[in-house]
This record gives sequence, C-alpha cells and structure tokens, in this order.
Amino acid sequence: MKTRAAVAFEAGKPLEVTEVDLEGPRAEEVLVEVKATGVCHTDAFTLSGSDPEGLFPSVLGHEGAGVVVETGPDVKHLKPGDHVIPLYTPECRECKLCLNPKTNLCQKIRGTQGQGLMPDGTSRFSLDGKPLHHYMGCSTFSNYTVLPEISLAKIREDAPFDKVCYIGCGVTTGIGAVVFTAKMEAGATVAVFGLGGIGLNVIQGARMVGAERIIGVDINPEKKALAEKFGMTDFVNPKEVDNVTQTIVEMTDGGVDYSFECIGNVSVMRQALECAHKGWGQSIIIGVAGAGEEISTRPFQLVTGRSWRGSAFGGARGRSDVPRIVDWYMDGKINIDDLITHTMPLDKINDAFDLMHEGKSIRSVITY
Amino acid sequence: MKTRAAVAFEAGKPLEVTEVDLEGPRAEEVLVEVKATGVCHTDAFTLSGSDPEGLFPSVLGHEGAGVVVETGPDVKHLKPGDHVIPLYTPECRECKLCLNPKTNLCQKIRGTQGQGLMPDGTSRFSLDGKPLHHYMGCSTFSNYTVLPEISLAKIREDAPFDKVCYIGCGVTTGIGAVVFTAKMEAGATVAVFGLGGIGLNVIQGARMVGAERIIGVDINPEKKALAEKFGMTDFVNPKEVDNVTQTIVEMTDGGVDYSFECIGNVSVMRQALECAHKGWGQSIIIGVAGAGEEISTRPFQLVTGRSWRGSAFGGARGRSDVPRIVDWYMDGKINIDDLITHTMPLDKINDAFDLMHEGKSIRSVITY
Repeated sequence: MKTRAAVAFEAGKPLEVTEVDLEGPRAEEVLVEVKATGVCHTDAFTLSGSDPEGLFPSVLGHEGAGVVVETGPDVKHLKPGDHVIPLYTPECRECKLCLNPKTNLCQKIRGTQGQGLMPDGTSRFSLDGKPLHHYMGCSTFSNYTVLPEISLAKIREDAPFDKVCYIGCGVTTGIGAVVFTAKMEAGATVAVFGLGGIGLNVIQGARMVGAERIIGVDINPEKKALAEKFGMTDFVNPKEVDNVTQTIVEMTDGGVDYSFECIGNVSVMRQALECAHKGWGQSIIIGVAGAGEEISTRPFQLVTGRSWRGSAFGGARGRSDVPRIVDWYMDGKINIDDLITHTMPLDKINDAFDLMHEGKSIRSVITY
Repeated sequence: MKTRAAVAFEAGKPLEVTEVDLEGPRAEEVLVEVKATGVCHTDAFTLSGSDPEGLFPSVLGHEGAGVVVETGPDVKHLKPGDHVIPLYTPECRECKLCLNPKTNLCQKIRGTQGQGLMPDGTSRFSLDGKPLHHYMGCSTFSNYTVLPEISLAKIREDAPFDKVCYIGCGVTTGIGAVVFTAKMEAGATVAVFGLGGIGLNVIQGARMVGAERIIGVDINPEKKALAEKFGMTDFVNPKEVDNVTQTIVEMTDGGVDYSFECIGNVSVMRQALECAHKGWGQSIIIGVAGAGEEISTRPFQLVTGRSWRGSAFGGARGRSDVPRIVDWYMDGKINIDDLITHTMPLDKINDAFDLMHEGKSIRSVITY
C-alpha cells in the first residue's frame, strides 16, 4: 500500500513529506493507522546526525497512538479496530529480561530494531523500490506503519489520540521514573533537574504519589510558572546561587530523598547525585548524555548511602504499564493537555522541530 | 584508673605500648574491659598518616570485644558483666538517620567521634596530664576503654572474644554488604573483587543466603584455595585475561546480579559496575579509595539498569544486627576461625601491622 510519511533522507536536512510504499504485516506483525504522534528530542537528535546509531534514509517518530488496521499471521492479542500505542521498548514477556521483574528492557528484538529493521531482518517501508529504515521499531511519522505485536500496547478506546500519543515516550519516561524506577513513597523530598517535558512529567509523577516537597532546578526562570502548575513547590535557578548542590542540601536539611536528571548533562548528573541525602538518597539519570561523555564522583558519596541509578522508558513495561498510565490521564490524575503546546498536520512537521530548537514548545503533536 | 594501651604518638611510627590514664564513665558512658581486638587496615591507614582525618596522639583500634566493668549515670541498657562489641557506627535509635529504616549511618555523635572525643567534647584517655584522642569512638588497642552506651552491642556470653571481635568490623562489613545493603536473594550470581578479609566475608555472606555462583577476582592466585573454602565457585585472575569485565559478562550470560568492590581501587570499582547485568545488576562499593580519587563511567551503564551503590559497616545497625551475626557464627552459619590467622598479646601489636603489610595475615587478633 501507499502511505504518506515524513522521510529523513539525510542527516541535518529537514524531513520530506512524501508518499512511500508500505508492505503489509508478516507473521506476528500488525499494521497500524497512526492517528497522532509527538515530535521528541530523540527524533531531533537522530535527524541532526549526532546519534552514532542513526540510520538514513528512515521514517522517524516513536511517540504515537493509532488504530490496528490489519494483523499478520500468529498475532494473538490484537485485532483490527483496537486502539494502540507503539512501544520503542517492547514487552515480549518471554525473554530473560522480561522474565525478571526488576527490569523493563525487553531484549527480544533489540538487534534488528537497532538496525532499523523488523524482527525478520527486512523493512516494510520503501521508496522507488529502495528500502527505508524503520526507527526505534515505531516509525510514527508515517500515517500507516507496521510493528511487531510485542511493540504495541492496547489502550482504551475513549482516550484521545492527540493527547495519549505523548504517553508513548515523554509522559511515561518522566512519570515512570518516579513510579516504576524510584518506586517513590508519599512524603518524599525530590529534586528535578531540567524543567522540559521530561522534568515536568517527573514533577507530576512525584505529585501523584504524594511527594511532600518538589524542588525544580532550571537556568530558565520562565519555566517556573508551568512547573508550579505541575506540582513544583520550590524553584532553584543555578545562575542565582553559588552552589546548587549545597543550596538544595541546606533547603532540605541534608539532601533530597530522590533526584532526577532530565537534561543529559554529565555535570548536572553529578550535582543531582550529590544533593541526595546521605544514607538513602537515590539519584536517577533520565537524560541522555553525548557520545563518550562520562559521569564521575567520589566513591564516598556512594559508600555513605547514596544510590546512582538510571531509568529508560520510565522503567515501564509497555504492554502492561502504558494502559495504566492512559487510565491515570483519563482519571485526571495526570495532566497531559497543558504539555502539548502545539498541534499541526504532517505537512508542518519541520515546524515542530523548529519550535523545539527555539525552546518555544513543550511538546508538538502531529495529527493525521 | 591506669590501663595498658598501644599509643599512636605520631604518624608513620610504630605504636608504643605503655600505661595511660583512663577516666571513668560519665553520663551515658560505659567502661569496658577489652578482651580481644582485631588489627584492621583502617588502623594502619590512620597510623600511616594517609588518613586526612587522622589525629595524634591517639589510642587506635576499633574491632574489639569485651566485658562491661562499670556504667555511668543514665546508662539504660547495659550493666557490669555484659559482653559487648564496640561499634564505630553507633545506633542511637533516635536521630533522623536511625529513624529511617533505609540506613545504618547514625549521626548522633558523629561530630565528636570524628574529633577523637567523647560526646561531651572531652577525652577519657590521658598521659602525663595531656589528653590522648579516642579513635572511631572505640580505642580497642587499650585494655580498658570508655564508650558511649549507643556504641556498644550487647552479645551472648558464650561467644569467644578472640573470634567475635572480628564482627566489630571486617565480618560485618563483608557479610552485611550482602545481607543488609544488597539484600541478596538465593540463586544470585555474584562477583567479588579483592579476596582479602572483606572479600572473603562477602563470599561467605553470599554463600549463606544461597547465591548460585560466586566469582572471585584477585591478581594473587594464592587467594584461590581459601576463597573456595568460603564459597567461591569461580576464580578470575585479571592478569590472565584480556578484559576482566568482558570475561565475567561472558561467563554469566550478560553479567552478574551483584558485584562488590573490596579493594578501594577506583578502576576496579568501574569494572565491578560494568560487569553487572543490564536491567538489574547492582554494584556495591565497600573499599575505601584514596583521598580525592573519583569513580567514573558512561551514564548509559546506569540508564540501562545498573545501580551503583556503596556500603559502610555492611549496612548493619550495630546494636540490632551485630548480636545476630554473633548468633550466625555460633550456629556455624559463618566461619570466622579460618580468617584469624594470627593471635598475639598487646606487646606484639606492631607485628600484626607488619604481617598485614607483608600480606601474610588475613586477620591478626590481639588478646589481653
């Protein structure tokens, strides 16, 4: 079949919206009509050429929501008409990692997904007879896309696509880091470094579980108002204090119970660790650092009881946890609407990248 | 009163065994007759002058066992005749840290203990009218010593002093890191870096809780036989493999569930982290690195699910947990006897340091 898609032909160039060929689903695969997709920093990172694993030409996009159109042979859990959110972290429920309750990092199709291919080692997308790469196993910048069944979370049918698509990445990454990775308890004291989309979702995750004090840290004071709306109780601007770590330690009588780095800056990762409380403070890295960059600290920070951890896709097991997060949104426990600052058609997708780079959007959503 | 003690008059010089003055216990303090004490690397570290917080002149020693002789006013939980193990990490059961079940790092008397003083800011030890410093709140290199009540664990009376003194530091540090810090489960896969006294105690702790595979790592192949006696199942000599991290990852189909650094080498700390399994591997730093040294890694190691942690005094709450570890020894669940390679009187204490520096002892114990 033919489908409209925004194709990344080359690193550093804008996407081109064009008609591409899409082959139907093979065994254990599903054809999905994408109804909406967010445009995320990770798409921009790959498009820029900075991602050492980036492949071109490819159909980017990994934060979508849509409807099942057709299922291939041996698909067991989905049928046409089901509403779904694509998962760049699948949940096969049978690999070594899925069978360990301590992690969400399903390894079943990791190899082929990283090569921009379906699990059988081929692509469903092509243009003029030449294959286009899939991206993060999702390729939601196409009106129709094919995914493995294990890469789709089935969600309730009354959830609006143009909002819950954000649960496919940013919302889950932030809220999940609180709920699934940190397993934060009510009454906790929290520091959140970086008040972009991820940081705001960490903040509202912390509020949802009953955190007592939520300190936001950002060099841009304009982030303050929205962060307060999401639950931030205190704001620290690193440009206005001598030492952000010391400031937070003093504000909290020894440090925070949990800190989250939502930027990808290795120096900030160290600050986040070192403002965690002696004895029990956990610091969780969410941001993605540049290739080859390293974190460091004195081991004494750990020996005196701090833990340094990380979170990918919020520690969420997609097929199991994404539908729950959709429920939290539908029940009004979390706010997604105020994070989606722009909505536009696929033809305007390059505007979404521009808005992101200019710092004018929290999240732009493309609707098909 | 007068008591014989080994006094550290100066950094880098041998201890001098001499008679010193000891004042009786003040409020909430206890006079203890030390019956036996281990000689630990930490004593040697301070005596060498490398410890930036080392104070002289002082009465070193922190790994003892003895009997209560006299209690000061307001002592509530101990009476003359009680058998006790001194605790360099006290347990007051009322400070912010004691009241948080996630840590053992009681802060009640941390300030004065670090200054080599009793909680009221004075010393009980003196010589020729000049005060001598206490050490780690214990000073077990004296036949009699005074400690705060919160720094004493009451233990059963049938436990031999010359063995259970080792529970005052090394045994608890190693076994506790497994039981209290890691909370290791049966069936776990483990890597232990450094097969000295701490490493051997980590190994037997892992065996006690039912670990399935315990990989010991040491550059000295002579450590192999004793480590196997304590439960090691596999031995890796970093001098005999290209890459110790990669070797362990391959041996274990992806890495170990838990790794422990028992040396104090920041490069080894990184190896220990990076041989932990993606998704859930925990790496626990026990060794004490040199002043100013730093650990580092790529944040990707944490984002993909490894945790970097540390352990001090094995995460044990001394008054609560040390008596349990004494029980484990008396019940034959752990082996201390084979770790105590030398026993000698106080007059020979400098021999214990020599044996340690020459690598000839696991643990030397002084008996009074």
